[in-house]
Amino acid sequence: MIKPRTPPGVLELLPREQVAFQRMLDTIRSTFEAWGFLPVETPVFELSEVLLTKTGGETERQVYFVQSTGALEKAAQGDDAGLPEMALRFDLTVPLARYVAEHEHQLAFPFRRYQMQRVYRGERAQRGRFREFYQCDIDVIGKDTLSPRFEAEVPAVINAVFERLGIGEFTIQLNHRKLLRGFFAGQGIDGDAQALVLREIDKLDKRGEAAVRDTLVGEGFGLAPEVADRLLAFSRIRSTGHLDALDRLDALGPGTELFEEGRRELRALLGQLHALGVPESRYAINLSIARGLDYYTGMVYETTLDAHPEIGSICSGGRYDDLASHYTRSRLPGVGISIGLTRLFWQLREAGLVEAASSPVDVLVALFDEHSLHASLELSRALRAAGLNVETQLEPRKLGRQFQYADRAGIRHVVVRGGDELERGVATVKDLRSGEQFEVALDDLADALLARRDAGAAR
Amino acid sequence: MIKPRTPPGVLELLPREQVAFQRMLDTIRSTFEAWGFLPVETPVFELSEVLLTKTGGETERQVYFVQSTGALEKAAQGDDAGLPEMALRFDLTVPLARYVAEHEHQLAFPFRRYQMQRVYRGERAQRGRFREFYQCDIDVIGKDTLSPRFEAEVPAVINAVFERLGIGEFTIQLNHRKLLRGFFAGQGIDGDAQALVLREIDKLDKRGEAAVRDTLVGEGFGLAPEVADRLLAFSRIRSTGHLDALDRLDALGPGTELFEEGRRELRALLGQLHALGVPESRYAINLSIARGLDYYTGMVYETTLDAHPEIGSICSGGRYDDLASHYTRSRLPGVGISIGLTRLFWQLREAGLVEAASSPVDVLVALFDEHSLHASLELSRALRAAGLNVETQLEPRKLGRQFQYADRAGIRHVVVRGGDELERGVATVKDLRSGEQFEVALDDLADALLARRDAGAAR
Repeated sequence: MIKPRTPPGVLELLPREQVAFQRMLDTIRSTFEAWGFLPVETPVFELSEVLLTKTGGETERQVYFVQSTGALEKAAQGDDAGLPEMALRFDLTVPLARYVAEHEHQLAFPFRRYQMQRVYRGERAQRGRFREFYQCDIDVIGKDTLSPRFEAEVPAVINAVFERLGIGEFTIQLNHRKLLRGFFAGQGIDGDAQALVLREIDKLDKRGEAAVRDTLVGEGFGLAPEVADRLLAFSRIRSTGHLDALDRLDALGPGTELFEEGRRELRALLGQLHALGVPESRYAINLSIARGLDYYTGMVYETTLDAHPEIGSICSGGRYDDLASHYTRSRLPGVGISIGLTRLFWQLREAGLVEAASSPVDVLVALFDEHSLHASLELSRALRAAGLNVETQLEPRKLGRQFQYADRAGIRHVVVRGGDELERGVATVKDLRSGEQFEVALDDLADALLARRDAGAAR
Repeated sequence: MIKPRTPPGVLELLPREQVAFQRMLDTIRSTFEAWGFLPVETPVFELSEVLLTKTGGETERQVYFVQSTGALEKAAQGDDAGLPEMALRFDLTVPLARYVAEHEHQLAFPFRRYQMQRVYRGERAQRGRFREFYQCDIDVIGKDTLSPRFEAEVPAVINAVFERLGIGEFTIQLNHRKLLRGFFAGQGIDGDAQALVLREIDKLDKRGEAAVRDTLVGEGFGLAPEVADRLLAFSRIRSTGHLDALDRLDALGPGTELFEEGRRELRALLGQLHALGVPESRYAINLSIARGLDYYTGMVYETTLDAHPEIGSICSGGRYDDLASHYTRSRLPGVGISIGLTRLFWQLREAGLVEAASSPVDVLVALFDEHSLHASLELSRALRAAGLNVETQLEPRKLGRQFQYADRAGIRHVVVRGGDELERGVATVKDLRSGEQFEVALDDLADALLARRDAGAAR
């Protein structure tokens, strides 16, 4: 006997939790489609040679390799030549780059794609760390050029997604890489030094301002104290609204050309967010956001739940200048975001913010007695034809146990039809949520159940 | 520069093919839910120890193993002890068995689950053979017992799925393991010999009747010629309808107790299929169906497209007596089927029966000129709020090129609003499918587009 268990680091859900998860996936998908994004799915594995062109040290160490039994045997005999042929994707960005480069001539640009699949990372086993998790990504990829206007559309999509998910108020934190780099250059910090300083500043929340300042003016960096102070003052700028954001930016005074360009783009972006009807309470400039330093070149985004800052960013991304330089000579600038849905779902569940959903099954058609089996099947058929999700009780059991089963399975309505109900052309409905029980004419049954279902869903 | 390409043996789709594929997945899912099945997803990998309890030789040789970088390095240093820790699932049945055994006490039985995920097999690279493919499974699992009535529900679900998929007429081939075993026993063939003889009979289509008969009466089997003839006559029984099926079965005369039991169950099943409204043209008894000999114990199913027999079975399964004997002492009988959707989609595409779907994007809101950007964004917002999927043209381009883009991307409607249209409160709609172009009052625009979309979808 083998103990049935999953590998560590995965989130496997019970059916009604899976229903809740699936509803989140559906909401995200329909929102992405409402904004004109097209679905893409890629294989779970890529050729190692293709997957590992771009990775640095840490990611490469987290890659899972895939080997057929044959390859494994060869390796065991020492016939091995380097890496296994294939590896599991560790994000959806590298597969996107490969996809766009491979199918470049069959795609219409700007190419707007969404992708919602699982990715794999050999994380250390730890509570809340997942080795398999869903990412839900959108990206817009241009050919040669891509207007900064697409960078304004992205926060509007983020807003729509989390509004529809209904998991509480949230704030989209915005920063602009050009502002950041422009400001740093204005302080005499250029090139590689920018990345190093930014990495320090990114530790503000963890280490505190005094410790970060000490590091910046210390031997390694050797910044003048007044420069360190200006950097810290800059990264403290966090607006809480639309006009406020622009005021604070304007108050920084004129800067380098790059800084001015960033400010112009950000100003245009805020205007577009307004035209798109994104409430001002939902976004804020936060000049301390410093993610993907080597990769992003324009807007960067992080999203936090107002009531749960401890969860960290639930949706992040930004603008990049060249998606697929390893695979094609075409220049493919883009902008995109990623929602780590498995981690988000897990954290919402931990915080008591999601629970097992009601069953997708609307009705259990009970089995009154052995003689009414065919009547039950015909009734089930009619209810399904009307658009209801129906389970039919097939095994003879006491009615009480049938109600018990429906209750346990999260099915709200039980319909019973037998005895004289068959002759009278009626059925009895029991609503397990409210406890009500009533008789309905057979002809009205489907409509009555549909109305109750839809009223229940609206609540 | 690395050549962007997928590993061999995967089916990667262009976005509009992916839309068509996604619609098939959605149809299957909603049908499964209409019949009261609940969603389950399991991790792509299982512990090797858990996954490989049940497999025989061939499947085990097709398994893909998964190793982290660390484990790979250890193995290279000879610190290896046996199989890698994890392997990719090769079907959805073993993960189901593990899932039900693991979560047994949290599930309501009979447990009805559907699962639609990809599975992995190291098939030899060959056209139409996939190493990664979707399976769409349903199973009903009982605790201790499961009524044969569930075996009648399954063909009704198969019927509903393929009716809704609309890929042409189909026939569900039915056989009953008890009929088969009972008949064989009546001919003096028992135990292991049944499996061996059945395996021969399963080759009828490939080898022809004469060759199979030769083998059966030859040295290996040594059956009497008249027994071989009776077996072949039995396996030739293929009904084309409801009453016909029963007549032919009755004409076989009385048999062993097991045979009679199978006949009783089959008779009851045909009555239930009738009550469930499954058209008689959609199913047929076919006593040559012999799949999963060691596994199935009651009804077995195969489904073929009437116009494309060459595709083979597109949906198969059956009744089994114990799902998870490797993982639990509980007896878990069940019945289930599997649709190999990737292979089916590929074959339908090869046969010209599916094509790239129209875009899920209903409308492209064109950009008339630079001054109308915010008007475009506001219009897009209003159309989205009405339930339309909208892409907004953000980059300035000639209108002709915007139409060209929409056409290429499969977007049916383009809405233009600029110049005096802004003042007059109207917009111009161009339908790229019909070529029509007309003006609509802004207040009526969303309704007009929704009506055209829904009329288009109904066609």
